[in-house]
Amino acid sequence: MTDPIPALTPEYVAVIFTSIRTDDHHAEYALTAERMEELARQQEGYLGIESARGADGLGITISYWRDLESARAWKQVAEHRQAQAAGRERFYSRYRVRIARVQAEYGFNDE
Amino acid sequence: MTDPIPALTPEYVAVIFTSIRTDDHHAEYALTAERMEELARQQEGYLGIESARGADGLGITISYWRDLESARAWKQVAEHRQAQAAGRERFYSRYRVRIARVQAEYGFNDE
Repeated sequence: MTDPIPALTPEYVAVIFTSIRTDDHHAEYALTAERMEELARQQEGYLGIESARGADGLGITISYWRDLESARAWKQVAEHRQAQAAGRERFYSRYRVRIARVQAEYGFNDE
Repeated sequence: MTDPIPALTPEYVAVIFTSIRTDDHHAEYALTAERMEELARQQEGYLGIESARGADGLGITISYWRDLESARAWKQVAEHRQAQAAGRERFYSRYRVRIARVQAEYGFNDE
């Protein structure tokens, strides 16, 4: 490495969204969640999404982004902002968002 | 800041475990999952855990740790290593582990 101030590839970003659903607005929620996944996939810097919600109402959705800039830009998309407002008004009784940088990963696949 | 090499508090660590369950060993899996949560809570540096699994079999468990050292130490705990082996042999058809540093967070609570 000869550059004394090297430009290094930053780690990608995970946006961890942990939420508790209200027990209401099921159809609107399902439509909105599906639409937001579709919209997220179209954004610059989108890498992937993982989502699970248990029978107890607690859900975790993690979206992965190339960098902080693309994660922040997604938060500002107009239709996403409307969904966030609906989330606070109708869909969620609580949520927490954590922005994290992925530093290492490994996996297992039995196939 | 007068120290030219300041020791700064590092961000805490999220270990994101995303998995697909085999359709088998339900009782043993439930016992093991419960025991691992109990054991994790006893470890130095443990901060918290979030977990959700949907009806499709995809689950996300995130454990939070004070630092990388405590996250790594938890991975090496003997009883946890046994559970990891059982996971590969019987509980999961696939999984992925991502180690990330949480850099920012915010939340919502309607209460």
